[in-house]
Amino acid sequence: MSTSQMDALLDAVAFDASGLVAAVAQQHDTGEVLMLAWMNRAALAETIATGQACYWSRSRGALWRKGETSGQTQRVVDIRLDCDRDAVLLLVDQTGVACHTGRRSCFFEAVRDGALVPVSAPLVDPAALYGA
Amino acid sequence: MSTSQMDALLDAVAFDASGLVAAVAQQHDTGEVLMLAWMNRAALAETIATGQACYWSRSRGALWRKGETSGQTQRVVDIRLDCDRDAVLLLVDQTGVACHTGRRSCFFEAVRDGALVPVSAPLVDPAALYGA
Repeated sequence: MSTSQMDALLDAVAFDASGLVAAVAQQHDTGEVLMLAWMNRAALAETIATGQACYWSRSRGALWRKGETSGQTQRVVDIRLDCDRDAVLLLVDQTGVACHTGRRSCFFEAVRDGALVPVSAPLVDPAALYGA
Repeated sequence: MSTSQMDALLDAVAFDASGLVAAVAQQHDTGEVLMLAWMNRAALAETIATGQACYWSRSRGALWRKGETSGQTQRVVDIRLDCDRDAVLLLVDQTGVACHTGRRSCFFEAVRDGALVPVSAPLVDPAALYGA
């Protein structure tokens, strides 16, 4: 992709007043929704250029190359924009687990009879992902 | 669900400074990601109470009872929160199409060779959904 193509593509995205868009990561073959994170222009550009998911960490105020610390990377299979172009859907191949709790998906609590109930268990010990 | 249960549940959600959380709607049986919208406390409360997806329209500044105009409602099968409790995943049974363009999913543009390319076609004429 040329620089001008990349610029035109990024210009088409409706980043919000904070320069961000919501990005949903979905496992490409099973359809499991893994996580929701945020991207700024640089994160989306890097994701497109490298084929590896890169987000913007709002808490750290820095690019978040998914899996850089944990090894739980996301290879990007396809990138979709929604009709308003203010949300991104990444179809990915997730290595290991997406969630920092050690679960495959971050969406592990369900509303059941008026309470929040975990519906999946950690597959790995977070300490093993991030060091003790 | 009692009022106190509902309040406790809503208190657990990390609404942002604008009082909103991102909400992803996914077709419960096929896994297709249909749309991303926003919910405030009232929208989430109504969704839980009625079992029909209700969002907050940022453009209209009003509750958005999905399908109220178009008939394209979303029956809620399950409600999930993510690990930070600042994003919602709705597993729904979508009547008809989710997108105002007449497509099943709002995420219909893909990044292909440096350009945005539609990867699905409208199933219905938007004029038929919203009146001419």
